[in-house]
Amino acid sequence: MTVQQPVSVLFFKVFLNSATQVPHDLCSKDGQKHMDYILTYSTKKLFSDLHPSLSLKEKTCCLSCCQPCKQSLRSQEEEKVLCREEFEDNLKKMGLHLEKDESNRISGVGFLKIHAPWDILCREAEFLKLKMPTKEFYQATPQHKMRKLNAFFKRITAPLLPNVGDTETEDIKKVCYPFSREKLHLFDLSDMDSFFDTKTRSLIVSIGELEAGLFLKGSRSKKSSRWNYTVCMQCRTLTVNLFLQVLYREWASYSNFYKYQPISLIRKYFGEKIGLYFAWLGLYTQMLIFAAIVGVLVFLYGCITVDDDIPSMEICDKRNNITMCPLCDKSCSYWKLTMACGTARASHLFDSTATVLFSIFMALWAAMFMESWKRRQMRLNYMWDLTNFEEEEVSNEYFAALHAKAAKLTWRDRMPAYMTFIFLMTFAILFGVIIYRVTTQASLQMSSMPSIRANVRLTVKSTAVIINVVVILILDEVYSKIARWLTILEVPKTDKSFEQRLILKTFILKFLNAFSPIFYIAFIRGKTANTASSYGVLFKQSFSPQCAHTGCLMELCIQLSITMLGKQLIQNNLFEIGIPKLKKLIRRIKTKRAPVQEEQDDKDLKRYEADFFLEPFVSLNPEYMEMIIQFGFVTLFVASFPLAPLFALLNNVIEIRLDAKKFVAELRRPVAARAKDIGIWYNLLRGISKAAIIVNAFVIAFTSDFIPRLVYQYGYSPDGTMHGFINHTLSYFNVSHFQAETHPLQPLHLGYKVEVCRYKDYRMAPWSFNPYDISKVYWAILAGRLAFVIIFQNVVMLLSDFVDWVIPDIPKEIITRIYEEKMQMVEFFMREEHSLYSMPMLDNQDENRPTPQLRRS
Amino acid sequence: MTVQQPVSVLFFKVFLNSATQVPHDLCSKDGQKHMDYILTYSTKKLFSDLHPSLSLKEKTCCLSCCQPCKQSLRSQEEEKVLCREEFEDNLKKMGLHLEKDESNRISGVGFLKIHAPWDILCREAEFLKLKMPTKEFYQATPQHKMRKLNAFFKRITAPLLPNVGDTETEDIKKVCYPFSREKLHLFDLSDMDSFFDTKTRSLIVSIGELEAGLFLKGSRSKKSSRWNYTVCMQCRTLTVNLFLQVLYREWASYSNFYKYQPISLIRKYFGEKIGLYFAWLGLYTQMLIFAAIVGVLVFLYGCITVDDDIPSMEICDKRNNITMCPLCDKSCSYWKLTMACGTARASHLFDSTATVLFSIFMALWAAMFMESWKRRQMRLNYMWDLTNFEEEEVSNEYFAALHAKAAKLTWRDRMPAYMTFIFLMTFAILFGVIIYRVTTQASLQMSSMPSIRANVRLTVKSTAVIINVVVILILDEVYSKIARWLTILEVPKTDKSFEQRLILKTFILKFLNAFSPIFYIAFIRGKTANTASSYGVLFKQSFSPQCAHTGCLMELCIQLSITMLGKQLIQNNLFEIGIPKLKKLIRRIKTKRAPVQEEQDDKDLKRYEADFFLEPFVSLNPEYMEMIIQFGFVTLFVASFPLAPLFALLNNVIEIRLDAKKFVAELRRPVAARAKDIGIWYNLLRGISKAAIIVNAFVIAFTSDFIPRLVYQYGYSPDGTMHGFINHTLSYFNVSHFQAETHPLQPLHLGYKVEVCRYKDYRMAPWSFNPYDISKVYWAILAGRLAFVIIFQNVVMLLSDFVDWVIPDIPKEIITRIYEEKMQMVEFFMREEHSLYSMPMLDNQDENRPTPQLRRS
Repeated sequence: MTVQQPVSVLFFKVFLNSATQVPHDLCSKDGQKHMDYILTYSTKKLFSDLHPSLSLKEKTCCLSCCQPCKQSLRSQEEEKVLCREEFEDNLKKMGLHLEKDESNRISGVGFLKIHAPWDILCREAEFLKLKMPTKEFYQATPQHKMRKLNAFFKRITAPLLPNVGDTETEDIKKVCYPFSREKLHLFDLSDMDSFFDTKTRSLIVSIGELEAGLFLKGSRSKKSSRWNYTVCMQCRTLTVNLFLQVLYREWASYSNFYKYQPISLIRKYFGEKIGLYFAWLGLYTQMLIFAAIVGVLVFLYGCITVDDDIPSMEICDKRNNITMCPLCDKSCSYWKLTMACGTARASHLFDSTATVLFSIFMALWAAMFMESWKRRQMRLNYMWDLTNFEEEEVSNEYFAALHAKAAKLTWRDRMPAYMTFIFLMTFAILFGVIIYRVTTQASLQMSSMPSIRANVRLTVKSTAVIINVVVILILDEVYSKIARWLTILEVPKTDKSFEQRLILKTFILKFLNAFSPIFYIAFIRGKTANTASSYGVLFKQSFSPQCAHTGCLMELCIQLSITMLGKQLIQNNLFEIGIPKLKKLIRRIKTKRAPVQEEQDDKDLKRYEADFFLEPFVSLNPEYMEMIIQFGFVTLFVASFPLAPLFALLNNVIEIRLDAKKFVAELRRPVAARAKDIGIWYNLLRGISKAAIIVNAFVIAFTSDFIPRLVYQYGYSPDGTMHGFINHTLSYFNVSHFQAETHPLQPLHLGYKVEVCRYKDYRMAPWSFNPYDISKVYWAILAGRLAFVIIFQNVVMLLSDFVDWVIPDIPKEIITRIYEEKMQMVEFFMREEHSLYSMPMLDNQDENRPTPQLRRS
Repeated sequence: MTVQQPVSVLFFKVFLNSATQVPHDLCSKDGQKHMDYILTYSTKKLFSDLHPSLSLKEKTCCLSCCQPCKQSLRSQEEEKVLCREEFEDNLKKMGLHLEKDESNRISGVGFLKIHAPWDILCREAEFLKLKMPTKEFYQATPQHKMRKLNAFFKRITAPLLPNVGDTETEDIKKVCYPFSREKLHLFDLSDMDSFFDTKTRSLIVSIGELEAGLFLKGSRSKKSSRWNYTVCMQCRTLTVNLFLQVLYREWASYSNFYKYQPISLIRKYFGEKIGLYFAWLGLYTQMLIFAAIVGVLVFLYGCITVDDDIPSMEICDKRNNITMCPLCDKSCSYWKLTMACGTARASHLFDSTATVLFSIFMALWAAMFMESWKRRQMRLNYMWDLTNFEEEEVSNEYFAALHAKAAKLTWRDRMPAYMTFIFLMTFAILFGVIIYRVTTQASLQMSSMPSIRANVRLTVKSTAVIINVVVILILDEVYSKIARWLTILEVPKTDKSFEQRLILKTFILKFLNAFSPIFYIAFIRGKTANTASSYGVLFKQSFSPQCAHTGCLMELCIQLSITMLGKQLIQNNLFEIGIPKLKKLIRRIKTKRAPVQEEQDDKDLKRYEADFFLEPFVSLNPEYMEMIIQFGFVTLFVASFPLAPLFALLNNVIEIRLDAKKFVAELRRPVAARAKDIGIWYNLLRGISKAAIIVNAFVIAFTSDFIPRLVYQYGYSPDGTMHGFINHTLSYFNVSHFQAETHPLQPLHLGYKVEVCRYKDYRMAPWSFNPYDISKVYWAILAGRLAFVIIFQNVVMLLSDFVDWVIPDIPKEIITRIYEEKMQMVEFFMREEHSLYSMPMLDNQDENRPTPQLRRS
């Protein structure tokens, strides 16, 4: 232990020297240290209302701060100054160096610049068990079998790689080891300045800052806390600026849309958590390419075969001359089946046999995607040396212990929150359906006027859906606010638990909001129309919205496509681009109140002063949420809308670059958070892809005409073809059986007197023994549908479990690499120890364990 | 580093002194060291055929040893001696102390006693990162809320706890830390002799032994290896003998059947892997109690309500006087429905509404069991300090690298093995079904003779099932041999992979063997009989085995109960008790050839000489396999046989003590293997419990009469009761429609001329428009059945996923304990380091991290 001391002192000196290269505005006044972390505070007035996006801790602290609110504003300000002083003292006690800058160009804002000296960095890095690069390099031994294939693959994908210069390649990697001050000699300290990179430094300071706040609370002499400081920023040093430029050029530009993202660079600048998000988004988009291609092929298959489709040919055939019963009471009248020709042909595009295969494909695709992500994640974990990193959830419990409230809360206190949530869920479902029904009913009322019938109907319906989408989007924002409010009511114990609860609540509400009208169309609407349909004699129901002749699939398709497109276009463009810009403008106006010569000012501002006007980074959750809901659109109803993956792909290609621009240019640099996986989002994805199997089974069985066709072809068709299918699906109705008040007002609309009309259902004829009773065919088809659901669900589940089982979670190559690296590490350890000390116990070679080299021979 | 050296030397001396207390026969000749590990070898003749239960490594090594087989036996013997010498040299080079004992009382057998000195133990323990107890104790802070409840619970369960003296309680625990020679001062070295317990010592020596063998192969100068030594034994020291006595008294005795097992003691003596098996078996048995109670209640409910069951009342009512059609062609004749009265009443015992609820209960029970086990395992992991232990699978790859064959094997070479396996699977399925059909057909032929009809039929059928069971049992043994052979053909790379492949293969074959007749009865037999049933006009099929009137459930029940009981009784008693005793006898005869004065000899033999005659421990797999198949019986068809959990419970109560006796008294002490979980078995359990949901859904829907009754009651019954159900299920058949050759030979068997007979199916009457066509009711009931399957499957799956989600995998208490222990560890570290050294870097308190105590305040 005595050996390291001089080394450490030596390093400290070196560090001070090298630090002078940092540009002036990021250095301390004496130009000796550069700043790792900057806090701002209000020097004049209350500042908190400027930042509505505070986290839980901040909110609750504000609440506890509010107790002295009854005092005058003046004394509150004094209290704050005192509190700030104690906080700064705490920071100093921890060994951090502070510097204040109140004489800056932004009036009313003070900057507290924090610098972590080498000692502190070492101490915290050791405590956090940060893995730091050692002097040793590890080169993966190339696998002989695959070398040629790999080389070929590399040459092919070369133009797709981002041009980020000489970053680490996949094959050569510095061996990392948990940092320990006792083993300084192992580490690569050649460049002391960048040994701890800026992201690590700011992470360390942010933890120290949190603790300083905790001690304050613990002492309880003061009621206020560090939360007077509202903005946390990391400063951008010279190297970081270089990073940013590369990121801006190679990542945040639309012209690179076809390239891979520079993930390792993103991770270096933003930390692992954000790196993982973009890696995930990249993989998802990449996987969507296959899905989109197959989806387009399925659609094209539908287009090509539309002229060979016998049922739609029969509908369009004017010779058949089938008179249909009115679709509603009184105001509607009889109509010709040929009028449904257009819809029938359009339906075929989405409802061919290929759709069934496509939904099986998509279920397997989802399983493949999950597996690929697990492998990708593992690979990144290895590359980023996170393989042994464990998130210490429990340590946050200290923080929780301070919430006196939370400790005493039982489930009874949380009951109101839970109840409200359940109420909200029901509300979300009902409201979604009601909105849908109101809009469609309005459109239907219009379209039932004979003047604007037929083709206009589709456009009217589409407008209804668009109104629907706008309502959904507004509700989306409302729900996310409510979910946050409910989660705060619950007072979860740890930060992680808070986030998980919040995500789950928001997800459930947003999911219901987006999908309840779609579920309604798919499974409820068509059914009430078909089986419980009116026609007076059977039931007394007067108006029931009915789908077009060829099932509700077409309407489902319209609803899906418009909801999906609308959400993506409006949320992306309006919310993600517009609102941040608006916010930035507002902040600028509020603080400066004189946006004159703004351009000029910007250039004169110091780096951190300019950053102050950027939007703070809140969390990745909205980004993930958007994608998860999109994943729902892509998988859940894919059987009815095979173009969904294509839409999603187009959106995501833009989304990646949009998010990139946002992170690089419009947000303050977030504190780098470490993470090993994408957490709860993975479970949500899994849940959706499981649900997708069942939903698709039901869509194919009940919403599409797949099963009735199959049953007809193999059970009832006289010649084994589809000829006569349409006739088979239509039952007879004797017009004289109409009840008085349901009779159509214009019985002669078609120009002749109708005696028997047809309707789509499997019922007995009026002249049979049990007129209008459900027929045997109905039950046979129902049994067929149900059997299909069982078979489809179990077969596809089994297949995706099989995919899950066959593809190993950890790539084989990574297993051997981890192992080889570990071995090399041990070897390197031995070598270093022997060369540094003469260790008495280890001297006697014979007595000791053979070194790995010997063991391997 | 210089500090530890004297400490270590000191300890070594102390160790030597304390070792003298070991009884003489376990010590070296000079009485100084006691022996940790004993190998035996043949001093005279080839010995390998004595031990057929060699593992893969041994088998393949024997194969490679066989190359010099063509030389004379003499030279082979010489080669062996040379090889042994090199092996022993290797062991000595590693620092192990050896001693030979050839002048023992067993002729032809030499003993090689191995002792690991303190240095070696320390070195290997450090390398293996063994967690050893430090001086620090951790006492869990009692949770205030639950204290009273806990105390009450403890008082209640006190008589159930085994009386094992003052072993560690749950609340106080030594803090353990990975052993490191540099940190010797941290560890509790007060009792040097037992610091490394016997299980750890033997583990360490066994690893050394493996490596010595590897180096031999690596040198390649000799072809032979350490595999000349056939028996590995651990010696039992004084303390161990005490252990054994306690285990024998408190664990391996039937009188303790109602008590918990002394798991921590089992782990101390046999290691973690075997400890986990018994902990798992214990938990499973414990959980079975609930299942058995509910199962018995369901059965009792059936018994009580049997007199109120309207369908069986109607069958037994002689006034109904229904004439049934013959059950087979020609030889069978018409019969009265009242003859089925007994079967109908018996069926009701197992086929009441409660059965549906019971199978939902059992699905949730299975989910609960899985979760409880996860929690239990986590608790044990914590208690046994395995929380950070990672099984180093890769290290075995060294071993694999030696198999030149395996490296070159591609999937094409393995193709034959895979193909054989697939062929075997089909064979297993077909053979199971064929055996079943042959036996039942024989019994049916007998029972179709009018003289031994009616009640005798059941007994005849039961004998058929018993024959069936015997065949299954014989095949079971054959299949396990074949699976091993196939796995060896595949040449898997690592030991772990070998075991997994072997288990999977054996499981699939044994599972198919046990369950294929049952699946056949449940899903295929009844169906061919009902829908495709003969009666001449419809199909030309001449003989189709038919179930009794009230569905196949009764037969399924008989088959299940007899298979289960038979397997358990025969496998337990005959195979598990009888065969080991037989083997022991054979070994004794082979080596001694003079079993005179055996009793006397036994007492004179040294401990390890006596152990030599015991059966070697092979693996836990057969034990697990037996239980997993039993779990299949308990969950898969529980809807048809609610007493299965009871049978399983009774069996397991005995099984635990039987296994205990075997491990304590009849097997050599196995080398303690470390394990964190039960590995692939958990996945198999999960798979079975998932399959159980679907199987039960189908059993209820298709095998039982649950759905037809429901459909009748709510769809067809005139008064909403079950009256008339029997009549509703029977169709009419006009006797004149019999084809010539299918006409019954004795048409007047009942004493009157039959014109119209009834049969169980939903078909149109002979006088309808489509005579004998499938009726609408049939389709309606089919739709009902299928809908039930979908609802049941998805609801129960959702419920068990919910159970999975609600119960946390790691008990909350354990999370806090792990965390608190870690904190205490850090504290203890700091304290120890400060007291031992004056560390220059850590002296400056202000500069350094506050200690956890400070952090916590």
